[in-house]
Amino acid sequence: MLYFSCDYAEGCHPKVLQALNDTNMVSTPGYGEDEFCNSAKEKIRDYIKCPNADIYFLVGGTQTNQVVIDSMLSNYDGVVAADTGHVAVHEAGAIEYSGHKVITLPAHEGKIDASELKQMLIDHYADDSAEHMVNPGMVYISYPTEYGTLYSREELDAISSICKEYEMPLFVDGARLAYGLAAQSELSMADIAAFADVFYIGGTKVGALFGEAVVFTKGNTPKHMITQIKQHGALLAKGRLLGLQFDALFTDDLYMSMGINAVKQAAIIRDDLKSKGYKLYMENPTNQIFVVMENEKLESFGEKVAYGFWEKYDETHTVIRIATSWATSDNAVEELKKIL
Amino acid sequence: MLYFSCDYAEGCHPKVLQALNDTNMVSTPGYGEDEFCNSAKEKIRDYIKCPNADIYFLVGGTQTNQVVIDSMLSNYDGVVAADTGHVAVHEAGAIEYSGHKVITLPAHEGKIDASELKQMLIDHYADDSAEHMVNPGMVYISYPTEYGTLYSREELDAISSICKEYEMPLFVDGARLAYGLAAQSELSMADIAAFADVFYIGGTKVGALFGEAVVFTKGNTPKHMITQIKQHGALLAKGRLLGLQFDALFTDDLYMSMGINAVKQAAIIRDDLKSKGYKLYMENPTNQIFVVMENEKLESFGEKVAYGFWEKYDETHTVIRIATSWATSDNAVEELKKIL
Amino acid sequence: MLYFSCDYAEGCHPKVLQALNDTNMVSTPGYGEDEFCNSAKEKIRDYIKCPNADIYFLVGGTQTNQVVIDSMLSNYDGVVAADTGHVAVHEAGAIEYSGHKVITLPAHEGKIDASELKQMLIDHYADDSAEHMVNPGMVYISYPTEYGTLYSREELDAISSICKEYEMPLFVDGARLAYGLAAQSELSMADIAAFADVFYIGGTKVGALFGEAVVFTKGNTPKHMITQIKQHGALLAKGRLLGLQFDALFTDDLYMSMGINAVKQAAIIRDDLKSKGYKLYMENPTNQIFVVMENEKLESFGEKVAYGFWEKYDETHTVIRIATSWATSDNAVEELKKIL
Amino acid sequence: MLYFSCDYAEGCHPKVLQALNDTNMVSTPGYGEDEFCNSAKEKIRDYIKCPNADIYFLVGGTQTNQVVIDSMLSNYDGVVAADTGHVAVHEAGAIEYSGHKVITLPAHEGKIDASELKQMLIDHYADDSAEHMVNPGMVYISYPTEYGTLYSREELDAISSICKEYEMPLFVDGARLAYGLAAQSELSMADIAAFADVFYIGGTKVGALFGEAVVFTKGNTPKHMITQIKQHGALLAKGRLLGLQFDALFTDDLYMSMGINAVKQAAIIRDDLKSKGYKLYMENPTNQIFVVMENEKLESFGEKVAYGFWEKYDETHTVIRIATSWATSDNAVEELKKIL
Repeated sequence: MLYFSCDYAEGCHPKVLQALNDTNMVSTPGYGEDEFCNSAKEKIRDYIKCPNADIYFLVGGTQTNQVVIDSMLSNYDGVVAADTGHVAVHEAGAIEYSGHKVITLPAHEGKIDASELKQMLIDHYADDSAEHMVNPGMVYISYPTEYGTLYSREELDAISSICKEYEMPLFVDGARLAYGLAAQSELSMADIAAFADVFYIGGTKVGALFGEAVVFTKGNTPKHMITQIKQHGALLAKGRLLGLQFDALFTDDLYMSMGINAVKQAAIIRDDLKSKGYKLYMENPTNQIFVVMENEKLESFGEKVAYGFWEKYDETHTVIRIATSWATSDNAVEELKKIL
Repeated sequence: MLYFSCDYAEGCHPKVLQALNDTNMVSTPGYGEDEFCNSAKEKIRDYIKCPNADIYFLVGGTQTNQVVIDSMLSNYDGVVAADTGHVAVHEAGAIEYSGHKVITLPAHEGKIDASELKQMLIDHYADDSAEHMVNPGMVYISYPTEYGTLYSREELDAISSICKEYEMPLFVDGARLAYGLAAQSELSMADIAAFADVFYIGGTKVGALFGEAVVFTKGNTPKHMITQIKQHGALLAKGRLLGLQFDALFTDDLYMSMGINAVKQAAIIRDDLKSKGYKLYMENPTNQIFVVMENEKLESFGEKVAYGFWEKYDETHTVIRIATSWATSDNAVEELKKIL
Repeated sequence: MLYFSCDYAEGCHPKVLQALNDTNMVSTPGYGEDEFCNSAKEKIRDYIKCPNADIYFLVGGTQTNQVVIDSMLSNYDGVVAADTGHVAVHEAGAIEYSGHKVITLPAHEGKIDASELKQMLIDHYADDSAEHMVNPGMVYISYPTEYGTLYSREELDAISSICKEYEMPLFVDGARLAYGLAAQSELSMADIAAFADVFYIGGTKVGALFGEAVVFTKGNTPKHMITQIKQHGALLAKGRLLGLQFDALFTDDLYMSMGINAVKQAAIIRDDLKSKGYKLYMENPTNQIFVVMENEKLESFGEKVAYGFWEKYDETHTVIRIATSWATSDNAVEELKKIL
Repeated sequence: MLYFSCDYAEGCHPKVLQALNDTNMVSTPGYGEDEFCNSAKEKIRDYIKCPNADIYFLVGGTQTNQVVIDSMLSNYDGVVAADTGHVAVHEAGAIEYSGHKVITLPAHEGKIDASELKQMLIDHYADDSAEHMVNPGMVYISYPTEYGTLYSREELDAISSICKEYEMPLFVDGARLAYGLAAQSELSMADIAAFADVFYIGGTKVGALFGEAVVFTKGNTPKHMITQIKQHGALLAKGRLLGLQFDALFTDDLYMSMGINAVKQAAIIRDDLKSKGYKLYMENPTNQIFVVMENEKLESFGEKVAYGFWEKYDETHTVIRIATSWATSDNAVEELKKIL
């Protein structure tokens, strides 16, 4: 069986595993107060050219979104997001569970539109009933989006400017950050750090066993952050595991090199699909390919390839997701091409 | 100044006030365990032809929605509502504050569509990721809606049937129930009780100082309901005040007679508006009139009449709300007509 | 039946009722933006000699505690209270429901001890695990306490000083404030306002139908307070009712005069009890009397007098509460004395 | 530096690491739906002699307590625990954050007393105000306790019986379960499973990188458990990592063998301490040693040994914790003895 169903089907990059093996019996303090975490933080600060960035390592994406959003918002605030955003759809209500509304804007291939954001804010503050409504307290975007699409520099700049104007922090969910950055040339991770008030660098989907690095870029860390992380059940006892992994990810440019592999393999598959006459459901340059497949074909395809069901297209077709990752080998892609 | 801005601008119906005056120095137990509450409950049970209905009196509408929804849902549940529903827009996130997502369906003049509800449920349960999403645990509709529109018997029946099929309680917000029932002839309050699993009879907007009567119609009262009400800060110490008011409202058909007055006065105003060439923003038969007014006209109008701002219509026009109520006198309507 | 079971067994003081009658058909804006609320706030500001006090009117005590505590605390904060405090015991978990721990100190006849508070704070901040524990974010005391006892000026000063030192707001629950102030001569309501960062003036138990006036005394109102009140389901549509009642309570010293009546009647009953050899469970100078009664006597007593069960004393005795109020008449006290 | 500060200072047992290495590039489905999880669950079911046990793997202890307690309780419920319990003190309010009160009983060397539990329940249900109080909905105990002490079979039986009588689930926190079971002979893990309605097998502190196995033993899994786990941000994408680790822990009795090592080493250290005249703060048979040390001695000791600060004993002494674990070697114990 070929695995193209998601980007978290394997363990971790061999270099990450090596780091865990090498240090296994070293004794360290718990809860992230160890040397490995410190080293990883230093490397990330260098990499994003943000020497004062404050960094926390958490375990998973939904957890990270919940902790970041809840710790940065006040009771009366909600978070603005695309109606296809992970926080709006696929987190089982983790944001609402923490007491906050997800205020949705229509998604355009997974992205929010700056002018629609602006208009929503204008309307909100002009509304006589504004005080009877949830206050828009933060903007959440994902880069890449859940549809594998990317905001351009211009788009990020526009959204970021509106956030500044309305004094709302901009939060960038980078669960697949490497796959976004590797797919375009106009934005670096340092640029993301500059635009965002807080963002996270996804490890789970990019070569770590697990782990997301939350970066507060503007001296804006919520107070008692460790207490808040603990309160959400999100403080890992052996925090060193997170430090070790991110230290490895940010050594010798491993993080970006994994992004490059996934994007390259996705491009090869995309070209192959097009050349064979498949219809792409949505164009995007990152590691997720959304393709329309005949249900009949899908049956035999599914026997050989693990793919992701996305949605019904029509009576005879289905949209599926083919995801590449750091772990996708040339060989697997060749095998896939033979089956397609 | 004429008041047509809302249906809660005055105190209460004189008969309700009389009841408060008559009993003021009577000593009773607190928290709703008094004879007045018992009497009011008995009258309501008779009126809705539901002898086993379990009834709780709360103070206000948002509070009631929060308590009912939170006490009936489990952690993993959200409540389905129109995207214009009070719970979705104008409760400052009270539902999310209690941990639950409001899952929105597109509103059609304030109403949800049964077939869209059904499709949403089919899609949800067919989704591979359903367990990663909020479970649709309840349907919330308002009768009349926030736009003064009404569900027909057929529409209620369709929604209610879907709820039964999916084992989701149907909750009817009756903040303005009298104004809905008085505006049509095919549905009685007993019918509402039969279709709904839980509904509330609005007092605040229909002649009480305050108060909403929550009715569980199917032997489905959440456990420890008093504890849950207390926990939400919603248990009135002098519960008798709620009992007294609802007892008065359900004596000599006072509740419905107030609905009839508001609807009659609204019809007179609506006819006058039409005859004078005003454009109605939305047709509806109840106590709220949404009319498009020239901004220029609105300026002088606003000096004499308190109205509700609804939304901007275009550069030169505004949608306003004119609301009648139990308290709207023939005289006030005549005055309004002169100004229009 | 004589009613001495609680201080909220009747409706409201005749002057309060008169105000409701006089204004019943006056039309006003909703949600507390009316002239009556403004007038009441002005009178309270004068009375407490705090011209910049920011005042909000809520409906009930548990609701008020929940809204005040939750709006003033951050996620990571808990509220420090006596282990007999209303928030710790009799609010059905309303504080925890809003996400905050009640950190308890041992009660001494209902009161916390300043030196124990100080020691708890010292220990907390000295603890290596402090960041893994709930942060003490506020101190809650009730005046009078749930046992009818009072803090002296010196005690209040000590607690207030610790709060200032640790930058924790001091919140005074004044559900029975009038009964406390009337029972001693060294503290005025202005003194309470000076010591507290926020306190509330109880109306429900002191002559109003319902209502509590929350006073932020130090320019420290939480942001978007109306939104937060709404979010807790605590914003009364006809806010005027609260304004009207507090306006009446603060006209011609009505509030304090009701306190004086209750305290006077309690003193008479207390003297009678002592002269007849009854054992008081706890001495206090306010409107609640805790007396140990033989179970045998209690049976016949209970047929004539509604009292409050407090707790079992021993196999043959029970502690009961006899509460006086603004409504307690000389006649009722004479009747009670005959029965005792 | 010798590490005796805690039982989570190293990575994981070599056999656990081997399992991660061996399977690293195997592709599996996410979220715990993989073969490794299934295998681990089967082994645990066999081990605890509970073929119908329903098992979920979570990442950490506080997270597990929060998820289990919140998913099993209703809104109106609180959890009963010792006032020294982890949920009561060291989880930063994670339980209250999820809306539930921790109802505390006095701890006796970390344990609750069955008769005090019974009395609390009798008092609660006899209280006229019970409905105004948090409902005792569950009992939480830790085995071993936070003080390393153990409940006897008789004690567990008594607590379990009370829970059955009052229909409250009994939840056993087994963060250090192996260290408890290895320290006595009258209880097996199967016995714990029989007494408890839900318990967890701690991995983080017993040889795993991280991970706790929650076991519902009585067909009592909360509905939509995956949704609830996701909602708390606790669903690990690469759930296989948990399965793999627990599979290794339950192969060839590894889990218990690690418990035996820690207990043996602790016994050696305890004997050495006693023979040298140190005073133990508290006797217990498990892997945590609480010893009173002179502050003067402690200074030099701390330069060579990482220990846990527990609390101040008197002006010249401190209580410290020395913890052994699966990773404690004979060599390290010999070194420690030389330093003591």
